[in-house]
Amino acid sequence: MAPLKIDIHTHILPERWPDLRERYGYGGWINLEHHCPGCARMMIDGRHFRDIEANCWDPDVRTSECDAHRVHVQVLSTVPVMFGYWAKPEHTDDLSKILNDHIARIVRDRPARFAGLGTLPMQSPVHAVRELERCVGELGLTGVEIGSHIDRSDGAHWNLNAPEVGEVFAAAEALGACVFVHPWDMMGKKEMPEYWLPWLVGMPAETSRAICSVIFGGVLDRYPKLRICFAHGGGSFPGTIGRIAHGHAVRPDLCAVHNPNDPRGYLGRFYVDSLVHDADALRTLLRLIGEDRIALGSDYPFPLGEHVPGSLIESMDDLSERAKRRLLAGTALEFLGLSDEHRRAIETSGGAALS
Amino acid sequence: MAPLKIDIHTHILPERWPDLRERYGYGGWINLEHHCPGCARMMIDGRHFRDIEANCWDPDVRTSECDAHRVHVQVLSTVPVMFGYWAKPEHTDDLSKILNDHIARIVRDRPARFAGLGTLPMQSPVHAVRELERCVGELGLTGVEIGSHIDRSDGAHWNLNAPEVGEVFAAAEALGACVFVHPWDMMGKKEMPEYWLPWLVGMPAETSRAICSVIFGGVLDRYPKLRICFAHGGGSFPGTIGRIAHGHAVRPDLCAVHNPNDPRGYLGRFYVDSLVHDADALRTLLRLIGEDRIALGSDYPFPLGEHVPGSLIESMDDLSERAKRRLLAGTALEFLGLSDEHRRAIETSGGAALS
Repeated sequence: MAPLKIDIHTHILPERWPDLRERYGYGGWINLEHHCPGCARMMIDGRHFRDIEANCWDPDVRTSECDAHRVHVQVLSTVPVMFGYWAKPEHTDDLSKILNDHIARIVRDRPARFAGLGTLPMQSPVHAVRELERCVGELGLTGVEIGSHIDRSDGAHWNLNAPEVGEVFAAAEALGACVFVHPWDMMGKKEMPEYWLPWLVGMPAETSRAICSVIFGGVLDRYPKLRICFAHGGGSFPGTIGRIAHGHAVRPDLCAVHNPNDPRGYLGRFYVDSLVHDADALRTLLRLIGEDRIALGSDYPFPLGEHVPGSLIESMDDLSERAKRRLLAGTALEFLGLSDEHRRAIETSGGAALS
Repeated sequence: MAPLKIDIHTHILPERWPDLRERYGYGGWINLEHHCPGCARMMIDGRHFRDIEANCWDPDVRTSECDAHRVHVQVLSTVPVMFGYWAKPEHTDDLSKILNDHIARIVRDRPARFAGLGTLPMQSPVHAVRELERCVGELGLTGVEIGSHIDRSDGAHWNLNAPEVGEVFAAAEALGACVFVHPWDMMGKKEMPEYWLPWLVGMPAETSRAICSVIFGGVLDRYPKLRICFAHGGGSFPGTIGRIAHGHAVRPDLCAVHNPNDPRGYLGRFYVDSLVHDADALRTLLRLIGEDRIALGSDYPFPLGEHVPGSLIESMDDLSERAKRRLLAGTALEFLGLSDEHRRAIETSGGAALS
């Protein structure tokens, strides 16, 4: 029987949604132009953002690609450009409901194949917590995906140590909902427009910013049961942990103002996905964070992802069978904290489907 | 005899310099407030930037600290906040001359103990090339330190692939001058003011931005004899090489527009310093870049540096004697490309001084 594979990092969009500029009265939103069968353009106010294909919206296409890649379960989340933290809270709340209802519908139809993470109007903790409660209580989603920081329309930038974000973490902890942190709105994006550098340099930095904010802000101590995971293997954080820990040690007046503890003590206290595209980098993660906190994530269906999810893990002969099982599914199951029913659906029909 | 140790990454300032606001007619410049013996405050327009001590300006204090740490040679460069790329070129040119003359004087006085890197008005290639020629031809400096990008007062941001920066690289190659790239003006600095994150997250990203710009821009192919080194062990680049190389492979339309070659092929084509504060990170560098391209760098005299320069390298029992010699001095000697006379001064009196 093929080992169970759960991919915690995949993105999905509805095939169609209302014209948001019309619905909310201002621009900045994504809309889809379906210009040929199975192809669409993501557009922002008439400007091209990204081309996507049917595997970004069609559960049937996704299912058949999963079968081809021997992936049993995809965890669905929206595309970060849809977060809408910059907009009026009631509008982002409305859009979040559209996106979350869509994901919930797909999960409900095929619980052995899909699990879901909601998106929240993080710029307004009141709205965000209410929608989080709805995601978990009504929609059966297992948690949420949030951005590496929150940019508000009033110019405020909340990093993940902000008390307002803490309200959402507190609610997630209380509800047992997992939190998946995805880089977005990349630092430096305007000053390095060439060579895809916002994705190749900015995104890893965003993730390090998010992890540092959570550690230095004492978030992991304040919410000890919070299950939080960072995309792209923790971005640039693992490779620069030496500098980060040294900085904390030598300038406590700057770094230890909210938390006196050595950042290295938090390794193993948060999750990361496996998306590092390099066996040595994965070994570094294993050494730092351990197989019990690393879960397969592929960034499906985007090109910067791992095109055959899990292939890096499966290619590494120096991993024990236990480590592979943990990386491919075991860690994900713990991180997600699915309902018993959902988990059984996966472990029986899902786990057997590709055997 | 103690192994020769050359520290390629140390910063120095003059003890005093003219009031630059008065000299140039506008603010934004650093001045020093000597408020007690051996202590000074770096101030920008009355705002506190950083406290420094006598080891930042006094060659005698530096020499005795070098003796205590068994460091034979320090390579001197200015503090990046002095770059002044944002100012009028003639003013940055003038300031560069003040700083370069100061470093050259110290090197001339103690060639067995010091080597020097100049700073250039990079916002104006004409001025920059002329000052580079003066640094090498008249002052006896071995190369220059430049920033990870150039921010001009007209709002232009030049990354290191810009043709204007290329003019300086071309001149450096022709002159045999080495180039040391230091992160500065960190991306995201305004949005992450807490926890020293511009230094812990922004600086590693800046260095990755610089390395990617040099690789993707074809700089290393255009100037094959250019000796270029990146601070802080290459920042976040080595730990995210998987993502960067994968990005180049899957989106050549974005990444390979100026250079079709796999970024991994450039590992070993540029230098990095050893300042990673972590044995595993240094092992990753050795695997990726090799002992012949890694040179001891400590960021002396700043707290984020390695307080006993070379102690990480010396602590690693798994390094061969050859590797240690390369990391502590051999790679530096090649990178610096000192004059025969200067090299002899170091290898005889310098190398013997601490034996």
